[in-house]
Amino acid sequence: MQVRKAVITAAAPNQNRIPTQQLVDCQGKDKSALQLILEEVLSCGVEEICLVIRPGDQRSFEQAAGDLVGSLQFVEQSEPVGYADALLRAKGFVAKEPFLHLVGDHLYLSASNLSCAMQLVNVASEFSCSVSAVQSTRENNLPYFGIVSGTRVPRKDGVFEVQRVVEKPTPTRAEQELVTPGLRSGHYLGFFGMHVLTNDIIAALEHVVADPSISKPTLSDGLDVLRSRHKYMAFEVRGTRYNLGIPYGLLISQLAIALSGRDRDRILTELVDLLAQRNAVAVDGGRDA
Amino acid sequence: MQVRKAVITAAAPNQNRIPTQQLVDCQGKDKSALQLILEEVLSCGVEEICLVIRPGDQRSFEQAAGDLVGSLQFVEQSEPVGYADALLRAKGFVAKEPFLHLVGDHLYLSASNLSCAMQLVNVASEFSCSVSAVQSTRENNLPYFGIVSGTRVPRKDGVFEVQRVVEKPTPTRAEQELVTPGLRSGHYLGFFGMHVLTNDIIAALEHVVADPSISKPTLSDGLDVLRSRHKYMAFEVRGTRYNLGIPYGLLISQLAIALSGRDRDRILTELVDLLAQRNAVAVDGGRDA
Repeated sequence: MQVRKAVITAAAPNQNRIPTQQLVDCQGKDKSALQLILEEVLSCGVEEICLVIRPGDQRSFEQAAGDLVGSLQFVEQSEPVGYADALLRAKGFVAKEPFLHLVGDHLYLSASNLSCAMQLVNVASEFSCSVSAVQSTRENNLPYFGIVSGTRVPRKDGVFEVQRVVEKPTPTRAEQELVTPGLRSGHYLGFFGMHVLTNDIIAALEHVVADPSISKPTLSDGLDVLRSRHKYMAFEVRGTRYNLGIPYGLLISQLAIALSGRDRDRILTELVDLLAQRNAVAVDGGRDA
Repeated sequence: MQVRKAVITAAAPNQNRIPTQQLVDCQGKDKSALQLILEEVLSCGVEEICLVIRPGDQRSFEQAAGDLVGSLQFVEQSEPVGYADALLRAKGFVAKEPFLHLVGDHLYLSASNLSCAMQLVNVASEFSCSVSAVQSTRENNLPYFGIVSGTRVPRKDGVFEVQRVVEKPTPTRAEQELVTPGLRSGHYLGFFGMHVLTNDIIAALEHVVADPSISKPTLSDGLDVLRSRHKYMAFEVRGTRYNLGIPYGLLISQLAIALSGRDRDRILTELVDLLAQRNAVAVDGGRDA
């Protein structure tokens, strides 16, 4: 299975600002968040990228893409009716091919010498099926993620055959239905925000979008249909994802990149200076008040 | 002297991205860099703000201003012919009034219970003349700042009468012409990026812009003419400025704000987690490679 296409969703309200934020990459170069996401995508051999955006955002995304704008196509989600619908906007783009899917508000730092996307594509190619990147997620983080349960594939480190997919389950439901044997107690397989999906996902998404009992169907809803019809795996990527959209998300992501990169020592020095300085200010300001 | 108006220059190439960057303020609220700058300006009683921008940037600045957009007026600098010219674009806006001037790519953290802008406006009101905020600046940072020399005003902490203004002097020139008595050895008074200017600055700027011997005249060129004609002071603000436009400028500024604010403990915790984590990754990644 060859993955030549990627779809990035960035149509949620307020998500349009994130890709245009400025960061410094591991090599110390100024990049927009979008450029970093696009580099992750291009790291695994993808040639064409489709961005699902809100009407009116194309120009700022094109500017944020810089030199990489040539690889991009845009489709618009005219109404904010959910994640499943957003991904379906790319149906024409993906045609019948498998594709890599990333959310537009996360950055990924690999813990191996292969990018997170490359690790995932390798697993999808080996098993010739849809694969979602996951990471072991503590119970208290259930409200933020889609969760899968599965059984380990023997002799394949970190690969699971998926049995259930539930978006943001309650702790009770997770404990009853979503325990994956072999994880630490109170831990579940939570989505990493990165998937390789075969064309079968389209019919599954159309199924959940047409279901009147589901309001704003998510990708998890579609994936739960997919796993009931086709082989579908999960893979514990060696790496960490950073959500840019949460409070201090940009700060934490930038720190993680900087501490993993060329400028680690410089940033540590600045950090120590700042800690000394800002503490002095707090004490001084207190005396002054 | 009452300061009712402010002029913010943000027309330099690449400066247009900075005000739209997202940060978290001392109270933990999401703000654009522009909103933080506008709040600084509004903290000292300013009612009307003029932004000098490049053609085409008004819409993104209006979006970045959020609720504060009502206080804003825009003028465009059609050609990037320097700082003096940019400030002159606001001549009609300032009319005959004194005004606060800030650059559009710095954030200011006060070390007292008065904002930096308020401290500066108080000094300008007391002396009824133009006053530039300055800070003691080490010789190795001369290439980045306009530098003034002056003599201390007796019994007025941190207030100087300005004798010379030179934009980015060489160390030799600084040593010969710009030593201010009473500073630490090798230190000079460098601009903080914040000024209260009387209407006399307009004629001074027009003088340097009309001078064919100066290419791309700066504000420093105008201020050196101003000090030759009128009383002009400098004031060591109690606070720190953070340049958003330099590499890692956003990271350092955000850290400084966060470490001075409500979420200090949370950020310190995240920092420690991240240091442990990213170090483990580096070691692990090294073993893997």
